[in-house]
Amino acid sequence: MINQKNVALGKVRSSIRELYEYGKARKAEIGEENVFDFSLGNPSVPAPEEVNAAIKDLVDSCNPVTLHGYTSAPGDYDVRNVIALDLNKRFNVNLNANCIYLTCGAAASLTITLNALVNRGDEVVALVPYFPEYKVFAENAGAKFVTAACEKGTFQIDLQKLESALSPATKAVIINSPNNPSGVVYSRKSMILLGQLLEKYSKRYKNRIYLISDEPYRELVYEKHDTSPYITDFYAYSVVCYSYSKSLSLPGERIGYIAVNNNMPDYEELYAGICGAGRALGFVCAPNLFQQVIKRVCNKTADINIYKQNRDLLYNALVEYGYEVVKPQGAFYMFVKSLEPDAKSFAERAKKYELLFVPGDDFGCKSYVRIAYCVAPQTINNALPQFKALAESYK
Amino acid sequence: MINQKNVALGKVRSSIRELYEYGKARKAEIGEENVFDFSLGNPSVPAPEEVNAAIKDLVDSCNPVTLHGYTSAPGDYDVRNVIALDLNKRFNVNLNANCIYLTCGAAASLTITLNALVNRGDEVVALVPYFPEYKVFAENAGAKFVTAACEKGTFQIDLQKLESALSPATKAVIINSPNNPSGVVYSRKSMILLGQLLEKYSKRYKNRIYLISDEPYRELVYEKHDTSPYITDFYAYSVVCYSYSKSLSLPGERIGYIAVNNNMPDYEELYAGICGAGRALGFVCAPNLFQQVIKRVCNKTADINIYKQNRDLLYNALVEYGYEVVKPQGAFYMFVKSLEPDAKSFAERAKKYELLFVPGDDFGCKSYVRIAYCVAPQTINNALPQFKALAESYK
Repeated sequence: MINQKNVALGKVRSSIRELYEYGKARKAEIGEENVFDFSLGNPSVPAPEEVNAAIKDLVDSCNPVTLHGYTSAPGDYDVRNVIALDLNKRFNVNLNANCIYLTCGAAASLTITLNALVNRGDEVVALVPYFPEYKVFAENAGAKFVTAACEKGTFQIDLQKLESALSPATKAVIINSPNNPSGVVYSRKSMILLGQLLEKYSKRYKNRIYLISDEPYRELVYEKHDTSPYITDFYAYSVVCYSYSKSLSLPGERIGYIAVNNNMPDYEELYAGICGAGRALGFVCAPNLFQQVIKRVCNKTADINIYKQNRDLLYNALVEYGYEVVKPQGAFYMFVKSLEPDAKSFAERAKKYELLFVPGDDFGCKSYVRIAYCVAPQTINNALPQFKALAESYK
Repeated sequence: MINQKNVALGKVRSSIRELYEYGKARKAEIGEENVFDFSLGNPSVPAPEEVNAAIKDLVDSCNPVTLHGYTSAPGDYDVRNVIALDLNKRFNVNLNANCIYLTCGAAASLTITLNALVNRGDEVVALVPYFPEYKVFAENAGAKFVTAACEKGTFQIDLQKLESALSPATKAVIINSPNNPSGVVYSRKSMILLGQLLEKYSKRYKNRIYLISDEPYRELVYEKHDTSPYITDFYAYSVVCYSYSKSLSLPGERIGYIAVNNNMPDYEELYAGICGAGRALGFVCAPNLFQQVIKRVCNKTADINIYKQNRDLLYNALVEYGYEVVKPQGAFYMFVKSLEPDAKSFAERAKKYELLFVPGDDFGCKSYVRIAYCVAPQTINNALPQFKALAESYK
């Protein structure tokens, strides 16, 4: 018998992928413009022009043996340095190249961090709603996956619920703000309280709880905030998992990083653990050409204004049609209350209106659906009458 | 306590890396041309020109949202199809796109395959000498790592030794031909006998033994062979782990594949396990730009003739100076018998002659050293007097 857990993971497509494949087939059947596919979080905005310009210039000007050669396992030192300086400038922190470990994207950032932290039997807590792969990644690292619900309706952190999910076995809490699937940005106040809570329970249980901040949507924030804080301002034992997939529209190129807070007392040990986990999982180094691209464009973003326009257009219309919607402050997802108790059955009925969105079950929220609005604005415009008709079908 | 096994893996640099860093420092001290660094298997030959031409053309002609976007997890279907057709043409096999799973390079190919196969407590057998990361990868997948020595002097497969290493717990045997570190290419005869042995013991133990063929050096073969067989010709339950790092000189770009034999009865289950393992380890898809590059250049190689020239130059000289050398038939490594019982002490003395090579201890062979001759021919020419002096110092 080969490993049946991985066979099952490979056979059972996530419901998101399943829906996406349904959408592809349906588009072939009735025409692309007649299917309104909000299933996937795949950026619709191209990478900034500087990306392709950098690629061409690197190819023309660099020695190919170096450009396409191995870098050190944590990534090219100069690239890491530029990223650290960029973060320092934007967030008033004090990171350096040796805090940064370049990865093959957000998923790699998370699996490497989890494998660095977790001993078999430890617990990893995620806040509901959560990105479904957290469970896969945490369990593969040997952890027990534990969840804590967010506040009803606002989907801000519910500190009491989180408190009751903590135990002496808690090794890490994963947060994701801006959040996939809710689009919520956790408030400054709740981040302060979160930091205090983790400190208190680390002391109480004499067992350090780490905070893993999964931030692929960090740059996709649509409301002004009072400050631009960095997670380490709230809690020293924080590890940031980042990816350029969304901010630079490069999801297929697999480039991101882990940032370890150098103000954490055991920072060097954790960084070594990250290097070791990356090695054991088979990540040799992040793709070199894109390391060098990032060095040149890490302070740029794709034209994310389009996502804000999409959000406003869709949010205002859905509210007008009577939907109960959590107003997204970031990312490119909208979390909408199902018009019937079973979100799966709601999403099924939506298919009759050629609307494809994902039931919240996979995110741990059975009465909601996720609408990924990272689509062409025209798709939203054309979908609005369908959303209206869907709502009216319940009246 | 965070995961101490990964901390240790991250802290203890491999002796290869250690030596490479020593070399860098020494070069800064006495000049690059005066240090003869044979420590790393880093290709010295540039990627073929078609690679950079393909990159530029793709960037100029493709929609960036597609070019830099996610592909399906196993990789773009058309890319996989082109690779399968190329293999079919060259090796007279009958693979298709659904046998190929694109990866972030050879290490990823191996960790994904091992995680797909292994249940905790299974055994994975490697032939000595072996690439040291096999142990790290197998243990991280939950396996017990078992070794079997090759034939003394020739480093061909020793079937009796392998036979005694097999047990009812054996899940897989890893082979690597052309071999790192010996440069040996396993003979056709020994491959036939290997296939028969694995079939016999799979039946005897009623437990299928899989053959993992790690082939990053497949195209680097310097002697004519009677045929160009493919591993599946010898044993149906074979999985090929490939990387374009060496054949196309792209080690930093992290692109390779796993090929699962579709003539294997449980092929679909194993392919699903590979998809699941890739997912659980955090590999979302192989870098897309380089997937598309591979589609265009997978039948090309870098100018690997230089490695053959290097081999001949170095091999002939070392034999003349009295070294006992295994003549490499492939890859770009030469395995040389230490001139004293302790290869570490031999490699240490070599440093006085500014010669850097790796003691065989890490490869499981304590009386040999590995010389990576993927260097500029000039480096070999300049190093020869040093090799001569080193040999003479033992007389």
